[in-house]
Amino acid sequence: MATPPFTRPRRLLPLFLGLFQGALLLFFAFFINYNEPSAQVEVANSTSQVYSIFPFFQDIQVMLVVGLGLLLTFLPRYGFSAFTNNFLLLNFSMQWALVLQSLLHHFLHGQVYLDLHKLLISEFAAVTVLISVGAILGRTSPCQLLVMATCEVPIYLASEWIIINCLGVLDVGGTITIHIFSCYFGLGVSKALFRAARQPLHPKETPTPRSDLMSLVGMLILWVFWPSFVAVLCQPADAQHRAIMNTLLAMSASTVTTAVASSLLERHGKLSPGHLQNGSLAGGVAIGVVADMAMPPVAALALGSLSAIVCVLGFRFLTPLLKRKFALQDQGGIHNLHGLPGILGATASIIVILVASKDTSRSQFSQLSPTGDNASEGVEGQWGGHGVRRQALFQAAGLAVAIIFSLLSGLFTGFVLQLPCLAQLPEQLCFEDSLYFKIQDETESLGPSSSAEEVALALKEQV
Amino acid sequence: MATPPFTRPRRLLPLFLGLFQGALLLFFAFFINYNEPSAQVEVANSTSQVYSIFPFFQDIQVMLVVGLGLLLTFLPRYGFSAFTNNFLLLNFSMQWALVLQSLLHHFLHGQVYLDLHKLLISEFAAVTVLISVGAILGRTSPCQLLVMATCEVPIYLASEWIIINCLGVLDVGGTITIHIFSCYFGLGVSKALFRAARQPLHPKETPTPRSDLMSLVGMLILWVFWPSFVAVLCQPADAQHRAIMNTLLAMSASTVTTAVASSLLERHGKLSPGHLQNGSLAGGVAIGVVADMAMPPVAALALGSLSAIVCVLGFRFLTPLLKRKFALQDQGGIHNLHGLPGILGATASIIVILVASKDTSRSQFSQLSPTGDNASEGVEGQWGGHGVRRQALFQAAGLAVAIIFSLLSGLFTGFVLQLPCLAQLPEQLCFEDSLYFKIQDETESLGPSSSAEEVALALKEQV
Amino acid sequence: MATPPFTRPRRLLPLFLGLFQGALLLFFAFFINYNEPSAQVEVANSTSQVYSIFPFFQDIQVMLVVGLGLLLTFLPRYGFSAFTNNFLLLNFSMQWALVLQSLLHHFLHGQVYLDLHKLLISEFAAVTVLISVGAILGRTSPCQLLVMATCEVPIYLASEWIIINCLGVLDVGGTITIHIFSCYFGLGVSKALFRAARQPLHPKETPTPRSDLMSLVGMLILWVFWPSFVAVLCQPADAQHRAIMNTLLAMSASTVTTAVASSLLERHGKLSPGHLQNGSLAGGVAIGVVADMAMPPVAALALGSLSAIVCVLGFRFLTPLLKRKFALQDQGGIHNLHGLPGILGATASIIVILVASKDTSRSQFSQLSPTGDNASEGVEGQWGGHGVRRQALFQAAGLAVAIIFSLLSGLFTGFVLQLPCLAQLPEQLCFEDSLYFKIQDETESLGPSSSAEEVALALKEQV
Repeated sequence: MATPPFTRPRRLLPLFLGLFQGALLLFFAFFINYNEPSAQVEVANSTSQVYSIFPFFQDIQVMLVVGLGLLLTFLPRYGFSAFTNNFLLLNFSMQWALVLQSLLHHFLHGQVYLDLHKLLISEFAAVTVLISVGAILGRTSPCQLLVMATCEVPIYLASEWIIINCLGVLDVGGTITIHIFSCYFGLGVSKALFRAARQPLHPKETPTPRSDLMSLVGMLILWVFWPSFVAVLCQPADAQHRAIMNTLLAMSASTVTTAVASSLLERHGKLSPGHLQNGSLAGGVAIGVVADMAMPPVAALALGSLSAIVCVLGFRFLTPLLKRKFALQDQGGIHNLHGLPGILGATASIIVILVASKDTSRSQFSQLSPTGDNASEGVEGQWGGHGVRRQALFQAAGLAVAIIFSLLSGLFTGFVLQLPCLAQLPEQLCFEDSLYFKIQDETESLGPSSSAEEVALALKEQV
Repeated sequence: MATPPFTRPRRLLPLFLGLFQGALLLFFAFFINYNEPSAQVEVANSTSQVYSIFPFFQDIQVMLVVGLGLLLTFLPRYGFSAFTNNFLLLNFSMQWALVLQSLLHHFLHGQVYLDLHKLLISEFAAVTVLISVGAILGRTSPCQLLVMATCEVPIYLASEWIIINCLGVLDVGGTITIHIFSCYFGLGVSKALFRAARQPLHPKETPTPRSDLMSLVGMLILWVFWPSFVAVLCQPADAQHRAIMNTLLAMSASTVTTAVASSLLERHGKLSPGHLQNGSLAGGVAIGVVADMAMPPVAALALGSLSAIVCVLGFRFLTPLLKRKFALQDQGGIHNLHGLPGILGATASIIVILVASKDTSRSQFSQLSPTGDNASEGVEGQWGGHGVRRQALFQAAGLAVAIIFSLLSGLFTGFVLQLPCLAQLPEQLCFEDSLYFKIQDETESLGPSSSAEEVALALKEQV
Repeated sequence: MATPPFTRPRRLLPLFLGLFQGALLLFFAFFINYNEPSAQVEVANSTSQVYSIFPFFQDIQVMLVVGLGLLLTFLPRYGFSAFTNNFLLLNFSMQWALVLQSLLHHFLHGQVYLDLHKLLISEFAAVTVLISVGAILGRTSPCQLLVMATCEVPIYLASEWIIINCLGVLDVGGTITIHIFSCYFGLGVSKALFRAARQPLHPKETPTPRSDLMSLVGMLILWVFWPSFVAVLCQPADAQHRAIMNTLLAMSASTVTTAVASSLLERHGKLSPGHLQNGSLAGGVAIGVVADMAMPPVAALALGSLSAIVCVLGFRFLTPLLKRKFALQDQGGIHNLHGLPGILGATASIIVILVASKDTSRSQFSQLSPTGDNASEGVEGQWGGHGVRRQALFQAAGLAVAIIFSLLSGLFTGFVLQLPCLAQLPEQLCFEDSLYFKIQDETESLGPSSSAEEVALALKEQV
């Protein structure tokens, strides 16, 4: 009752989502179908998708739904919201990406046939939204997040099309197209949305041992399944095996290096949970763009170590600096996990291409484009002839496009989120589960004057 | 020491389980063996089972052991019991189903050879027990649950045999045979066991933010692996791919629609954790019976949305109504998650069969019967000739058989659970971990007169 | 500030780990490479590894990183440390084992080519460290654990080489080489490190309902994926199928029997969380050595039941006895989970070999040695001729070697850990997350004189 202005956006949520779901049904009814099982080719394709894509797809689902969701529960009073919003956004964004992709495909090629590969590509589009949310975690309403997803998905698809199909950038694990894009998009939104500097630290922002443990469980689920995320779209056999190995090595090096860096930078040599939750994954972000390239294992280890160092340094020095100098809020530290290691990976890809060209054939640069076989073949044909230096140049161009494109569109989206109908949360109501979820507030009845008896009673109910 | 009458059923538990385990050993010693590895056919079969069934089997194990277990931890003081009982019941019921299946097979076909497929079928029988427990969660002793499992498994096997083998019902994901059966069985047990109306709400029944979060983690594990549950027994290639896709679409639509429905029905437009924990899975329940049939993707989306609406409406209106009018307790709301969406799915299967017959060949209705290849071929031969209308009729008959059979046998089982030797828990001892588990009761030492010092001390130990 | 002597070992950690990571990079730069993708054989090998090893490898990663990590969180104030140390040690030990393995291979066979199979073998070496930690959980610094890992990995590799390659012991699931070795190594370390008897029980040692639940989640993750651990190195097809089935049966019997045994031994017939967390896994430990051998299913069930009984009896009687008589601390009870069931399994393997020889051919004893194909063929050639009695004798010899070798080297390692530079933790600082991790101590500000208001405030922040 004390928050009347926030019932309006709550009414907006079912309206927005309901209309979307209705439109989706209509769209599917007219445009989308499965392929006819009579076609022998399709049967072979289905079988191969069930056996080659499905296990990876399941791993990625676990990563996004359980792993990423739990990783975001580090805010002790916002865990339920972070977890649930992550899940809702994943579903909404995936459906929205499926619609956009199918529309495009419909106008270019006619009838759209749905399969697991198309769902996977839509899931990748949804990942960008989930990452971007990290920058503004706990300070926006679910409705604002939905509007952000509505803007981000088409912009991502456009950006990905430019980077992969036009520039022919090699990026099998999505380092440039997914991680860098979503990071700077999220920072752009955050900058546009929260322009004023904030009070030092909200008490609800400090993780408790329990919320840190849950977040660590989420990180480890991501850590375990990360190789599947990087390798799912690799060409089978050697390239896929190489991508898996490189990812495993990079992430293992990241983990050990994070412990070293965190211990050196923190007071008394203690390890920081925040560093561990992010640094251990930094190697996975960086390795994505070079995972299937011809490079020795030591390069994967070195890249993993470097990205962990960059990530921990970012948390220690860059995030506070950006906050102080540019009033830039990055709640979950996505710039340290996705931005800096991503740039490192993109730079590494340029070096690997230039160095590898001296002693290996071009054949290793082939990759399966995430937009499907046809597009991929087109890319092959288009860029097969251009030289190694040009490929390196295009990697750099792809990096630049991703950063600039995402920052600008993020800023624009941030301004959209300030529309009056989306009522921005006042500071004191941030990071609070009970605002949008019907969750029992355990301490509601405990005023500052409550007696020890009442406290003991509350303690009993709280187990 | 305060609960002398409840030490007797605690003594019953090891007696019952110990005798069962001993009998199982004897039975296995005489009747069960692996196939000889010399037979070349068997080797091929083993290989194919390791590669085609084992990954799905592992997914299903994660669902049942971790996912379903965690989903049931929403009662804040009964989480450990719910989780452990779920695990014990799964193992007991699976072994018991294996014995019954093998006995039957032994008398019909002679020597029984154990393989992964037989274990999977037994696991499905165990699922019915785990679902039924939801209706009486927290209000029965482990011993009562074991007796219930002992009754439910053979009744399920009989019901499944009638529905699949005699009526030729198509139900690849177990919507009718597993979900509907177990739901009405559980409700029958609950009705027979708790005939009187209850006090409004036990304070221990209200979830805390923490128990809600754990339950949500469980739901998401179920959500992620649900396609494996539906598709494991599909014919490989196209049908399996189609079943996976349909399940993914239905559950994604369920999730978004649940948020819409919950927000519209709750005060101030807040989302209810209970709705999210159940509604997001409703699509998976409903889609099971039609997952591999020839229908367009929009049908899966629509079915998912509808079942989420039905589920949320059930929680909001039907469960309180049943409680008020019929004194029917449904602790976990299984009627809303398994009953209503199941009926919706069964109805959808009739429509799909009638509609699909107009433009597709009969071949799409073929499926691998869960009772094994031989039985399946028998079904094919038996029903291959009957028309589409007859198949639709048999689907309806299967639904009716499942509901009536399970309700009656559930009521009977409920009466059995009231046997004096199984001493029913008094109301005030329900929902309490420490009654059956050697668990430190954190608040035991805190009387209402404890001083702030004691509370602070308790707080310290409680982290 | 109150703990000046413990800042020194904290400084040692980054030094030690940093030097190691640097040396690893150098070593990889000079010695390790991937195989050239031009070799057609290698491509086939990579494909087969991605499809045959990778799914099992992922399962094992989930077990070790998430499952085992959570299992160790039963100490309520040491959960974060236990979880994180487990993760760091896994990565460190795996890299260290990779280096040692590659060095050996380099000197014996020349150029080392890295692949998933080599990583898997290194992971197995790391497992021994993670198990051994259980004996001294919460009472050592991270630096001491690293030194222990540094000692244990080479000793394990030597022991495994003697047992498998020299003695030709059959041990597909690592019962002797991994479980028994790591158990007695850990007990040796514990004995050497903590010679004096301890106070009855530290208050921080008692699990809370919450920490017990988290630990149970970890156990269940281990339980579900255990068949992958046992079967990953089996020969495909029949042996692998058999290993999976035997493991599933043994662990299912373990679970039910644990409930029986725990209920019989505990007061009032209550079940003990500690028994459930360990006994349910005992069958998996015992079955490893016989999983792929020719034996009827009843043998797997019986072995599972027996090992659960032995495990629960161990917790109830042997652990307190060892503590009282020999001042032997076994914090996590690894002797009951890994030692006793391991010895039982090794004994079972002798019986199975002697019995099976009477009615089956020798061919079932073939197995893929964990040290790679070449070694395996060597073993085959070497021991193919020796009789069944000799094989049984060698199994016994392997068991003896594992126990004696690990106990002695464990004692030696324990003495190393007492080096003054590794400052041993005083008793009152044990089992405490905040000593090595920058974790908010929730009760720090709450002195015994804090008023109810302060407590209520703390309660609010604590959610």
